[in-house]
Amino acid sequence: MKVERIPLRDGRDDVTLTTYVLDDSGEMLDGSPRPAVLILPGGAYLTCSDREGEPVALAFASLGYHAFVLRYSVYGDADPMQDLEPRERSQFPHPLVDVGLAMREIRDRAEEWRVDPSRIVVCGFSAGGHNAAMYGTHWDKPVITDAVGEGLRPGALIVSYAITDYVDVAERAREQGAVEQAIRRAAAVAYLGTTEPGHDALIAASPALLADESTPPSFIWATGADSLVPARHSLRFAARLADVGVPYELHVYEQGRHGLSLATQASAGSRGDLDSRAADWFRQASSWLEARFALDVPELSAWERRPLREDPR
Amino acid sequence: MKVERIPLRDGRDDVTLTTYVLDDSGEMLDGSPRPAVLILPGGAYLTCSDREGEPVALAFASLGYHAFVLRYSVYGDADPMQDLEPRERSQFPHPLVDVGLAMREIRDRAEEWRVDPSRIVVCGFSAGGHNAAMYGTHWDKPVITDAVGEGLRPGALIVSYAITDYVDVAERAREQGAVEQAIRRAAAVAYLGTTEPGHDALIAASPALLADESTPPSFIWATGADSLVPARHSLRFAARLADVGVPYELHVYEQGRHGLSLATQASAGSRGDLDSRAADWFRQASSWLEARFALDVPELSAWERRPLREDPR
Repeated sequence: MKVERIPLRDGRDDVTLTTYVLDDSGEMLDGSPRPAVLILPGGAYLTCSDREGEPVALAFASLGYHAFVLRYSVYGDADPMQDLEPRERSQFPHPLVDVGLAMREIRDRAEEWRVDPSRIVVCGFSAGGHNAAMYGTHWDKPVITDAVGEGLRPGALIVSYAITDYVDVAERAREQGAVEQAIRRAAAVAYLGTTEPGHDALIAASPALLADESTPPSFIWATGADSLVPARHSLRFAARLADVGVPYELHVYEQGRHGLSLATQASAGSRGDLDSRAADWFRQASSWLEARFALDVPELSAWERRPLREDPR
Repeated sequence: MKVERIPLRDGRDDVTLTTYVLDDSGEMLDGSPRPAVLILPGGAYLTCSDREGEPVALAFASLGYHAFVLRYSVYGDADPMQDLEPRERSQFPHPLVDVGLAMREIRDRAEEWRVDPSRIVVCGFSAGGHNAAMYGTHWDKPVITDAVGEGLRPGALIVSYAITDYVDVAERAREQGAVEQAIRRAAAVAYLGTTEPGHDALIAASPALLADESTPPSFIWATGADSLVPARHSLRFAARLADVGVPYELHVYEQGRHGLSLATQASAGSRGDLDSRAADWFRQASSWLEARFALDVPELSAWERRPLREDPR
């Protein structure tokens, strides 16, 4: 496996693509390209969480897919419980354009890494899930095509406990607890530059209101007990895909808090991040992905194709 | 993740330890050591199969364990369908001592890699499974302690479709097909230096006849349809552990050929290596391992432990 951290923006070390590129072997795919999964960790556009980076990359790599972790533009060290001053860096469209830069880097090096560029999955968690869904609804729009080029369509999306409808966020803000409201305000400053964005800005950041027939097939999951990003956001994104005729799969687990990542010991920050029922999402995503993007496993190996011969003795 | 290939024997590049050392993060274990899995691929002591190396390492890494792949001393390029001349290199005890060298390397660098040296699992497949079981029954015997030192006990073994009883192999050789007999003869030359080893040599290479109360707890699996290494070898190793009072777990899947590795697309060389029922072994091994060697996931994260404060607004 080739693990390498590649800066994607000149003069900055915060926007990076970390590769988890699998070794080739004549005993297995023998040079055939593999699908890849590009992972966008969450962190309210304030940070990129380690819990949703390497552990998730290794989970997909263990299925035979190349994996990549993108650390996109975020606000940086901040206490979400304090009022934040806006910073340009983490605001729309910069984190979204970073996804395009990552897609272009993978596409440019597809031959070297033996990636099938038509089978790159973008998989995000929480704010990273929002960023993934934004990319899925903007990859063919000028915000991406002008900045990084045409044709960088993801083969599929995996959208985990993500905000997808900022209009809903604004309308229901008062239903949430004090901590959730503080995080919501900090994230709004980070991504939209203000705690009180206008209606057009809310719509422009809402994949559940923007998805169309060019949005890729999507696997969506959430937990019903999530108090920070209600599962309603996942339902709305699914409903929009149903409306526009894009294939999707949706799993909402009744229990489990926000930010479970894999919901196993491999990604847990504390015991509350362990949830054996919600951990099912990864098995479901794995079989969904394999049905769509199975590896090109040969019918017969070289040994099985060898000419028949007599018993050598 | 730190991937590095480390030579274990001076002046040779064929005996190597490849690391798959997980990144530490303040959001997760925050410096706490993790258990590790040392993987020994199979290949009849003629080769070390890629199919039982990196894909297996990544499967264990995806559970939160550090992983290591040992390429131990093997015969080298050879057509098992031809008669082979003995070579010293791959013969007992060299491949076994290589496991000790790997255990010592991991132990020596445990602090740097944040490995818990009391929780190193040795996991082997086919000939690698034999080598793992041999290590489990020899780690406290002079063949290891004189060569690499005392106290290098594995915390557990995972023994996959391995030969464990060479006396049985010799007695039943004629029951097998021509191809299986040819591979058996080649493997015997590689490991024992002759196609007709004496009775003492057969016993000395048979973990199912040697295991005692110092053998570590073992997870054992095989497929009933394996025509190269009959599942009887797994049954015999399990029966011996039962006799000497060592905890063990055993899964024999009715169908599935020899050498399935993970039995998924991640390790398949051809379609015959895919087996959704036998692929269950890894889930069973994962929960067996977690029951014994769970990561030290904190009760509460730093964020959860923060002092309570008033609503900031």
